[in-house]
Amino acid sequence: MKKRNIIIDCDPGIDDIIALSFAIANEDKLNILGITTVAGNQSIEKVTSNTLKLISFFNKDIKIAKGQKGPLLREKCVVSKVHGENGMGDYELPEPKIQLSSDNAITFLRDTILNCEDMVTLVPIGPLTNIALLIKTFPEVVEKIELLSIMGGSTDVGNYTPSAEFNVWADPEAANIVFKSGIPIVMSGLNVTHTTGLYREDVDSLLKSNGKVTHMCGKILDFYFKGDHVNNGKFTPIHDACSIMYLLYPEIYKYRHMKVEVDCSEGLNRGNTVADVRDWVNYDETYPKVLLEVDSDKFTEILLSELYKLDNIMK
Amino acid sequence: MKKRNIIIDCDPGIDDIIALSFAIANEDKLNILGITTVAGNQSIEKVTSNTLKLISFFNKDIKIAKGQKGPLLREKCVVSKVHGENGMGDYELPEPKIQLSSDNAITFLRDTILNCEDMVTLVPIGPLTNIALLIKTFPEVVEKIELLSIMGGSTDVGNYTPSAEFNVWADPEAANIVFKSGIPIVMSGLNVTHTTGLYREDVDSLLKSNGKVTHMCGKILDFYFKGDHVNNGKFTPIHDACSIMYLLYPEIYKYRHMKVEVDCSEGLNRGNTVADVRDWVNYDETYPKVLLEVDSDKFTEILLSELYKLDNIMK
Amino acid sequence: MKKRNIIIDCDPGIDDIIALSFAIANEDKLNILGITTVAGNQSIEKVTSNTLKLISFFNKDIKIAKGQKGPLLREKCVVSKVHGENGMGDYELPEPKIQLSSDNAITFLRDTILNCEDMVTLVPIGPLTNIALLIKTFPEVVEKIELLSIMGGSTDVGNYTPSAEFNVWADPEAANIVFKSGIPIVMSGLNVTHTTGLYREDVDSLLKSNGKVTHMCGKILDFYFKGDHVNNGKFTPIHDACSIMYLLYPEIYKYRHMKVEVDCSEGLNRGNTVADVRDWVNYDETYPKVLLEVDSDKFTEILLSELYKLDNIMK
Amino acid sequence: MKKRNIIIDCDPGIDDIIALSFAIANEDKLNILGITTVAGNQSIEKVTSNTLKLISFFNKDIKIAKGQKGPLLREKCVVSKVHGENGMGDYELPEPKIQLSSDNAITFLRDTILNCEDMVTLVPIGPLTNIALLIKTFPEVVEKIELLSIMGGSTDVGNYTPSAEFNVWADPEAANIVFKSGIPIVMSGLNVTHTTGLYREDVDSLLKSNGKVTHMCGKILDFYFKGDHVNNGKFTPIHDACSIMYLLYPEIYKYRHMKVEVDCSEGLNRGNTVADVRDWVNYDETYPKVLLEVDSDKFTEILLSELYKLDNIMK
Ligand SMILES: [Ca+2]
Ligand SMILES: [Ca+2]
Ligand SMILES: [Ca+2]
Ligand SMILES: [Ca+2]
Repeated sequence: MKKRNIIIDCDPGIDDIIALSFAIANEDKLNILGITTVAGNQSIEKVTSNTLKLISFFNKDIKIAKGQKGPLLREKCVVSKVHGENGMGDYELPEPKIQLSSDNAITFLRDTILNCEDMVTLVPIGPLTNIALLIKTFPEVVEKIELLSIMGGSTDVGNYTPSAEFNVWADPEAANIVFKSGIPIVMSGLNVTHTTGLYREDVDSLLKSNGKVTHMCGKILDFYFKGDHVNNGKFTPIHDACSIMYLLYPEIYKYRHMKVEVDCSEGLNRGNTVADVRDWVNYDETYPKVLLEVDSDKFTEILLSELYKLDNIMK
Repeated sequence: MKKRNIIIDCDPGIDDIIALSFAIANEDKLNILGITTVAGNQSIEKVTSNTLKLISFFNKDIKIAKGQKGPLLREKCVVSKVHGENGMGDYELPEPKIQLSSDNAITFLRDTILNCEDMVTLVPIGPLTNIALLIKTFPEVVEKIELLSIMGGSTDVGNYTPSAEFNVWADPEAANIVFKSGIPIVMSGLNVTHTTGLYREDVDSLLKSNGKVTHMCGKILDFYFKGDHVNNGKFTPIHDACSIMYLLYPEIYKYRHMKVEVDCSEGLNRGNTVADVRDWVNYDETYPKVLLEVDSDKFTEILLSELYKLDNIMK
Repeated sequence: MKKRNIIIDCDPGIDDIIALSFAIANEDKLNILGITTVAGNQSIEKVTSNTLKLISFFNKDIKIAKGQKGPLLREKCVVSKVHGENGMGDYELPEPKIQLSSDNAITFLRDTILNCEDMVTLVPIGPLTNIALLIKTFPEVVEKIELLSIMGGSTDVGNYTPSAEFNVWADPEAANIVFKSGIPIVMSGLNVTHTTGLYREDVDSLLKSNGKVTHMCGKILDFYFKGDHVNNGKFTPIHDACSIMYLLYPEIYKYRHMKVEVDCSEGLNRGNTVADVRDWVNYDETYPKVLLEVDSDKFTEILLSELYKLDNIMK
Repeated sequence: MKKRNIIIDCDPGIDDIIALSFAIANEDKLNILGITTVAGNQSIEKVTSNTLKLISFFNKDIKIAKGQKGPLLREKCVVSKVHGENGMGDYELPEPKIQLSSDNAITFLRDTILNCEDMVTLVPIGPLTNIALLIKTFPEVVEKIELLSIMGGSTDVGNYTPSAEFNVWADPEAANIVFKSGIPIVMSGLNVTHTTGLYREDVDSLLKSNGKVTHMCGKILDFYFKGDHVNNGKFTPIHDACSIMYLLYPEIYKYRHMKVEVDCSEGLNRGNTVADVRDWVNYDETYPKVLLEVDSDKFTEILLSELYKLDNIMK
């Protein structure tokens, strides 16, 4: 089977770290053309530094490009406290041995996509600022993007506000541009990411592990549990891993195609993704594929075993 | 047990007719001080006429007052097609034998509430225009209102738009005033009303009934089935009956108290009720009680048997 | 010539005090049926107390009714600092000898308007909360209202915000209802009130006056000068007096009829009155008459001489 | 005196044609590094074609780059009818002899600005889509931009809507990005462009002219008069020429620095530029310089004589 070409656009961020690790554990299936960063969970400097450190830690030579320092319209990007001062739950990885391939994620994305022989899948797991600017500034890439597997939005509850998920809330105008672009979209929103993840005992096992990678994952997830309020500390979603999981195991998800619009008003619903979940209204396959359910046990099992696999790879 | 004093504010409307009938079947528990009308499912003239006809049909002398002809800010009230040209599924009740007690629902509500020795419960099952004007024009009633048992809003899906339920959509500014009033509220939103109701075979039985009331109910619900898109015609919600049911059988519901705000913007989410369903955020009992689940079988069973009871009462 | 029946709806407020005084000086032309109060420049308690004191001070028996304590949708009414802690520039009038005729301005307005043989002119010079509730709760008054001579809004600059005048900003939804009501409107907005008023030397003369009324006016206007930022302290607008002046001397104004809509959004333009001043777009006389220019010298001259006249009346 | 390096971003458009001609007549003072196009008065294809034809007509080799085909968020750009089916008042220039230097205005702007030894002035006289994307995608250009001399917005009346000028209305989010960018701005809004321009008799003289350029100007302005509603056909503003005029003759303008924000809501004021014209609020020189008055006669005189000068240059 042919590998899928992907570029991950991220803001690590604890769950971003898990998602990146999960992707790297699957390089037999995923051809990672590059990683772009965007301000979100932390400042652009910190999330870019975290990405460089992580890829160095894995001894990989994946290209990394630094992206936007804030959203399209608002001046400063609010930083999530859930991810700690350094954006990695205050876990300290060694200084990176590699350097940025580019300090402009937009041109890096354009060049990488256009230079790739086949179609490319983008995996945006942070605010959608880079992707929106890519689409508007270089519209010629649109037809070369096979899929956007997005972590963002929700069909029901929010997290940053009662009605808005953080990634979309952080740049609603960018999300609006992306959802209107016509590019095929798979949306992993809170409605599905909240229903699966890792259990307290999973994290305890990771913490006790001698493996270099799994121990690191245990440490940052231990911090993540503190900030997570869902499920009373027994369980934590790993939001960003969902968008990678979908690429590898689409069969564990249920979904429907539906219209998704982004509320860009100043009011209560800023950043809310209005997904038309009325089941008596039908949309064809040109509309975003919104993930609605996941086989939660499979998700947990796969994610954990892939993280442990990384310990072997790195030996 | 003491009877609960209630005033029903409605826009009949098929499910309003069922809700009113259901209330009348329970006059041993509910002291119906009056009924007020409001433009919504149909024009104020039609919904008022329907109310007069229904109460005449039941040979009751419940006081009826005509209310607002449209929402606070927008000029014309959009009319729901789900309820037919006459608002009663084109079923024709005989001309009324009774007359309006008042052509001003606001002063009628004020007088009735203030003249009642005990507290009064309001049951708004149409747009909230009358209730909002009552609260603002006569704030002295606030402390005499025991409860607002509202059919309106939703914690998830909308019906009139992807994000908004019809009653709140029809006058969001009024709903905003009501939800901010500090009066105790029980909200029966689409999230719960969509999960219960009557089955196709229930309506077929009503249609075959020789009882005067049940036959009428069968006819209008047969029409209602046509307009309802939920559950593929096997089943239809009876939204407005929920707000009466809660007063009689609160034990069949699950709920949480939470903040509820109404989106009054011009955009995608106009009329959306932002209920803070994040289960890691806690609100005390001064916040609205939002119904989340209902024992669906109990609901169906009780509602049906009470409608059949009315045939006996009217013999 | 027949006297014009008026009711003044106000929030004294320094310029309200001048406007009320100016109206009382013209009782040969204006039949003051009553005064209603509304929260705005100060709390409803303070502005009502100020009104009672002023009318007592004039030994008049004009009926006074207490109105709304805050706007329709927002919970608290912001208080203008321009009018001092007591709303009268910290000037202390004696305790009132008269009492409220009603503690409900809405029903007072309805009764007074309906009981008047002729048409009635309303002069709203505070937030439009009372008037909006009157129109919605008692729509039967609409055809008995000859004119709304409103101080509020602006075709250009704002004062409370860059784009919004205080009275409209304080309750945009109420203003929206009023401007959509179909009642004839004359709008005295900042665009015209800013172009006339009293000079520093006028106020100095008032201060030196031995007249009871003019001395009071001098004292409160001296305070008003401190808070006013227009024209470098040489000159101060007397906004609310404009709406009375128009009734007495319409010939000193230039105007055009135009569409006026009120921005009720949450954003930058909340409370902005969108008056269609494009001179190549024409509106007929059913649209609000928006005052555009005034003979500034005449305004100053008339206002001053009328205030001095009051000293004689009260001797 | 050193020439000013400029790039004109435009959507010709009749007044754009005059502005471009006016700039070309002043190449002794202005070093035109390029022209970029943007959808606005007409589709991107038409405005780009018009630009190529005009520059061919002048036998110039100015570089031209094709820009954005629509605004950032809304899908289609509304086209102004004022400029005719072809965007040039249906005047037909010969087919162009030159070709596009680039089909990406954003990268053309970046390259041209960064390759220029000195600072560059941008003259945006269409919707601000290109400029916003330039600023966000290539923030390194910001410090090389000396000035944005923008035709857009208004401190008072709108044209496309009662409150919004066309260029800003056509892409408010882009305008928002530009006004927040921190780059020095001179804003020529309708408040000043409406107060000057060309008279009917000026256009008649142009029409009668034997000069190649002036005759063309006469023909397109004759069409422009039909669509212009200001000043009853005696006079027409030449909006876009204002932004060039300011660069050449700043001394004929009066201005103040003030905060300017763009309303991006869905409501009445979408596209309104909220300029804080309250003269008692002071802003320093880091805020946009908003042109408030112009010596109207000088403007007309200069503009006309420069257009006639072009006939000589082209002989
Ligand atoms: Ca992330
Ligand atoms: Ca109803
Ligand atoms: Ca006032
Ligand atoms: Ca233009």
